Amino acid sequence: MNLAEKLISSHLTDGEMRPGEEIGLRVDQALIQDATGTMVMLELEALGLDRVRTEVAAQYVDHNLLQSDERNMADHLFLRSACRRYGIWYSPPGNGVSHPTHMQHFGVPGRTLAGADSHTCAAGSLGMLAIGVGGLEVAMAMAGQPLYVTMPRIWGIRLAGALPGWVSAKDVILELLRRHGVSGGVHKIIEYHGPGLDALSAMDRHVIANMGAELGATTSVFPSDERVLEFLYAQGRAGDHVELAADPDAGYDLRDEIDLSAVEPLIARPGSPGNVVPVRQVAGEPVHQVVVGSSANPGLRDFAVVAEMLRGRQVHPQVSLEINPTSRQVLADLVKTGALTALIESGARIHQTGCLGCIGMGQAPAVGRNSLRTFPRNFPGRSGTHDDSVWLCSPETAAAAALTGAITDPRDLDLALPEVRQPRIASAITTPLQKPLPIAEARQVALVKADSIGSLPELDPLPDSLTLPVLLKVGDDVSTDEILPAGARALPYRSNIAALADFAFGQLDETYPQRARAAGPHTIVGGRNYGQGSSREHAAIVPRHLGLRVVIAKSFARIHWQNLANFGVLALEFADEADYDRIAQGDELRLNGLRKAVETGNEIDAGGVILRHRLSARQRAMVLAGGWIPEVRHAGDR
Amino acid sequence: MNLAEKLISSHLTDGEMRPGEEIGLRVDQALIQDATGTMVMLELEALGLDRVRTEVAAQYVDHNLLQSDERNMADHLFLRSACRRYGIWYSPPGNGVSHPTHMQHFGVPGRTLAGADSHTCAAGSLGMLAIGVGGLEVAMAMAGQPLYVTMPRIWGIRLAGALPGWVSAKDVILELLRRHGVSGGVHKIIEYHGPGLDALSAMDRHVIANMGAELGATTSVFPSDERVLEFLYAQGRAGDHVELAADPDAGYDLRDEIDLSAVEPLIARPGSPGNVVPVRQVAGEPVHQVVVGSSANPGLRDFAVVAEMLRGRQVHPQVSLEINPTSRQVLADLVKTGALTALIESGARIHQTGCLGCIGMGQAPAVGRNSLRTFPRNFPGRSGTHDDSVWLCSPETAAAAALTGAITDPRDLDLALPEVRQPRIASAITTPLQKPLPIAEARQVALVKADSIGSLPELDPLPDSLTLPVLLKVGDDVSTDEILPAGARALPYRSNIAALADFAFGQLDETYPQRARAAGPHTIVGGRNYGQGSSREHAAIVPRHLGLRVVIAKSFARIHWQNLANFGVLALEFADEADYDRIAQGDELRLNGLRKAVETGNEIDAGGVILRHRLSARQRAMVLAGGWIPEVRHAGDR
Repeated sequence: MNLAEKLISSHLTDGEMRPGEEIGLRVDQALIQDATGTMVMLELEALGLDRVRTEVAAQYVDHNLLQSDERNMADHLFLRSACRRYGIWYSPPGNGVSHPTHMQHFGVPGRTLAGADSHTCAAGSLGMLAIGVGGLEVAMAMAGQPLYVTMPRIWGIRLAGALPGWVSAKDVILELLRRHGVSGGVHKIIEYHGPGLDALSAMDRHVIANMGAELGATTSVFPSDERVLEFLYAQGRAGDHVELAADPDAGYDLRDEIDLSAVEPLIARPGSPGNVVPVRQVAGEPVHQVVVGSSANPGLRDFAVVAEMLRGRQVHPQVSLEINPTSRQVLADLVKTGALTALIESGARIHQTGCLGCIGMGQAPAVGRNSLRTFPRNFPGRSGTHDDSVWLCSPETAAAAALTGAITDPRDLDLALPEVRQPRIASAITTPLQKPLPIAEARQVALVKADSIGSLPELDPLPDSLTLPVLLKVGDDVSTDEILPAGARALPYRSNIAALADFAFGQLDETYPQRARAAGPHTIVGGRNYGQGSSREHAAIVPRHLGLRVVIAKSFARIHWQNLANFGVLALEFADEADYDRIAQGDELRLNGLRKAVETGNEIDAGGVILRHRLSARQRAMVLAGGWIPEVRHAGDR
Repeated sequence: MNLAEKLISSHLTDGEMRPGEEIGLRVDQALIQDATGTMVMLELEALGLDRVRTEVAAQYVDHNLLQSDERNMADHLFLRSACRRYGIWYSPPGNGVSHPTHMQHFGVPGRTLAGADSHTCAAGSLGMLAIGVGGLEVAMAMAGQPLYVTMPRIWGIRLAGALPGWVSAKDVILELLRRHGVSGGVHKIIEYHGPGLDALSAMDRHVIANMGAELGATTSVFPSDERVLEFLYAQGRAGDHVELAADPDAGYDLRDEIDLSAVEPLIARPGSPGNVVPVRQVAGEPVHQVVVGSSANPGLRDFAVVAEMLRGRQVHPQVSLEINPTSRQVLADLVKTGALTALIESGARIHQTGCLGCIGMGQAPAVGRNSLRTFPRNFPGRSGTHDDSVWLCSPETAAAAALTGAITDPRDLDLALPEVRQPRIASAITTPLQKPLPIAEARQVALVKADSIGSLPELDPLPDSLTLPVLLKVGDDVSTDEILPAGARALPYRSNIAALADFAFGQLDETYPQRARAAGPHTIVGGRNYGQGSSREHAAIVPRHLGLRVVIAKSFARIHWQNLANFGVLALEFADEADYDRIAQGDELRLNGLRKAVETGNEIDAGGVILRHRLSARQRAMVLAGGWIPEVRHAGDR
């Protein structure tokens, strides 16, 4: 078996390991952050959970850190109270980004991790099977339920050789994106193997595993070897190490190989992490902002290399160089190694630890001005700026631009290769993670809910007959960003479905929330690939709260399709795609015998338009019950 | 002569030093920050300035640092381009708060400083005469005009004894606020003298001088002595030192004395810096947030004392301890002295350098949760949170609450007195301040104006006859915050009058901007003390842009009254206050013979309501011309 198969088979609860089949996995660890965590806590409340059942469950506050008004801190107090109530570790603001912080404190080879954040996969760097999913799936995992996923194909990528100077882990994942694009990893687990691994530290592997998400992969896995032991030793947790690797004769469903010695400095042009070109091809473009940090380049090394390149030099006066330390530990080590002083003296701007600009919370660049970032994503507008111009690159390439004020291949600077000293023992093992309370004490804790924090809407079962107005008709490839935006405007409302509802479909039709509130139960008609993009479950909950009972589309994106079922919205497809043209916004559809049709898989006749669903037995039950939470509650299945 | 008189007389260009008379002062240095600076730059543009004429003019970017969208960085690029064009020092984001940064790099005893920020007075700590005024007055100073102020009375405060342990400079200014309240310093310069000065460093004096603004004082002054020499030596600028003190037989208009040895830890309760009580009187109140930083406690010592109290201990888990380093230099020295490591390891959250929560840019507390801050102001809602609960205190009292989770007199903790090591030579003299360009090069620079940046509105002369609808009638004590708010919502629009206009009078009547745009020329009727509070000139420019030509009130606050004149709005008072009741919102007033009345001081008859003005000859000229800028331009007086 390859390593991915070993990790899956040792956690398999349901199904068989055949690509395309639904399988259930036992979840050892769960991770949430604050933008998804408030909803997860409301889900635990709605489930009536007494105590989480995973070995480790951890809540990180790393997204909503700007605190422009009272809502952010109200969320922090709510999350802390819920952690105390349910037995969850609480990592307060200031500790850093969830992924590196979790890796530092809780990462254990061979364990499974379900995380309500798409970059959860970064923990594959330690030989974990770590999968990013919707919040409710993490809530269910915390409640002891398996995690259901479609069995992916295993894609073995052999690494050979060693990276040359000025080239680092970020360039490796950019090379994969250059070759295979942003959907190259869909329904696949990327498994790295081969002799090239030796020279990649655990944090280097984190860089590569993290941006597997940008290839659309289910996750990425690395073996647990000497490099992983070094990492755990530095954390004072050498005892958590186990050796893990593919069997010598293991096979893979797909294969590729990278000769590390041939990789060169790469950069993703604005608009997509898949727009990768050699840095030299775009050298000379003027640069006004450089940002170093995020879960895509989180290690001490990633900052130290920038510090060494800048030591004794000044940032180009046209450039704002922004340093976002990823964790308290990294910040402490930057201080102790002298790297922070070099950065401060060079003119860098030192920010608090956290995600910050990576999720559009501040650091927005000026319109059309090039911003080079060591981040994982550069979708248009994600920076907070319309018509932004964000490029993705390695710390070396970022530092080169900070020095010159233009995109520059670091090999073309007249600099000595930076020597980076990594302390054998990492700092700040005293990071103030707040431990789960003993259960008797936990049961006394009341949730702290400010007025700005709602509850999960009550979800009623699917009626057998519905007469539904078509409140919206949209085209192909509508994304969850269009259904419900993120960013500095909407994110502070993440814990209040009723308030968040005002943002629903705002980019497509600002009148939708008001019309939906007036209409009550209604339907939406979509084209192909409805609900693509981010996994945010708010894109299902919020329309359901506004009365959405049925979505009819040509086809659905996988995660949103699951989220719709999770919250009791029936996803129907046209038997004949041409019927899309027969329904207009404003029409009224009468749907009869719905419950029977969902149970049996029968087709539904909506006035001559034939509709059908592709729900699994598990999903049918939740749709009939009105959602996964009412289904679990009614079944007493806790 | 006392020291204030010496400083004034050595810079006097117009008038006589009689309290209550308008005097003109030669301005040696000018300071602006980004929230006021964009408007100052637009004013320099409107004036057609070629090059600033002060010895030093410096632009600091310290307010708008969150960058939630593209506007902040667009402002930064605009400010930098204007600095390059006009010969102004540019301090980019990351260098820190204007007041301590200016003191570190440019402070020189005996010089005058005009600053477009109310805490400019902090430079009195170095024996400077430093006055906070409106942006246009700073623009005019940069253009070589004198600064016009009303000659204040000089208030000598004798300091005796030495501060006991756990009591620091912040408690001294809180003691003055406890005694005299927030209007105790109005129309006064506070001059400190006496033997107690010996034990107060220049940065301690900065703390005291800074919050003279909270007493309403014109400014505060300290002598330039050994302590000032020590400070300048640490900055590598010992050569800038001159001894300055009052003559031994100097008199004062008013006197008070503080026995430093009798001062105890004090705290201002929520709502006003004047609500001062002993810490012990409110001990035990639960605390959820503690913030250390701002221009009111900016020195290395203020952070180091917190670090020493926390060293080896953990922040109380209920408390978010936020550290806002005030300047790049302080941050570098916190690293070098080990203080930053102690703070990181204790669980403190380390923010970027800048004003941040002090001006409501982030760090907003949860509703009703106590937040202890070393800041200068706690007006309701200034934190960004409605129904906030913000207290003001010393770093010692702040750290005590961070340790215990409750308001605590630091003397009641079982802690050894912190020993704070101050390096004799300060760090980071390489702070990347960008120098003024040589004039030939400067003349080639074009202003960089994004679409989000406007221009100053063209201001036409005062007509002789006006028929004006009364668009708003308001009560007593309307503040400039109510006329035009600050905060995270409105501040990003500070450089665009047309966009900012949507916020005008929003708290009192949201329909005003729309009605004003429809009506054109109009008037507003107010009660007593119209325009109290912050000096922001936007509160005059924006209504003028919307068509405001005349304000009729029972009385005006001093700075807003000047700002109205600066932008050509005629401020009229009722001859008989009872006539306030004879005018209703919606009435139309016909005003004839306005120009003659302004020139001569004659009364104006508005349909039986008698109105008059109190404008000086200088102000009459600017109101007739439509504002100070058109007056200067038409006079060719540059």
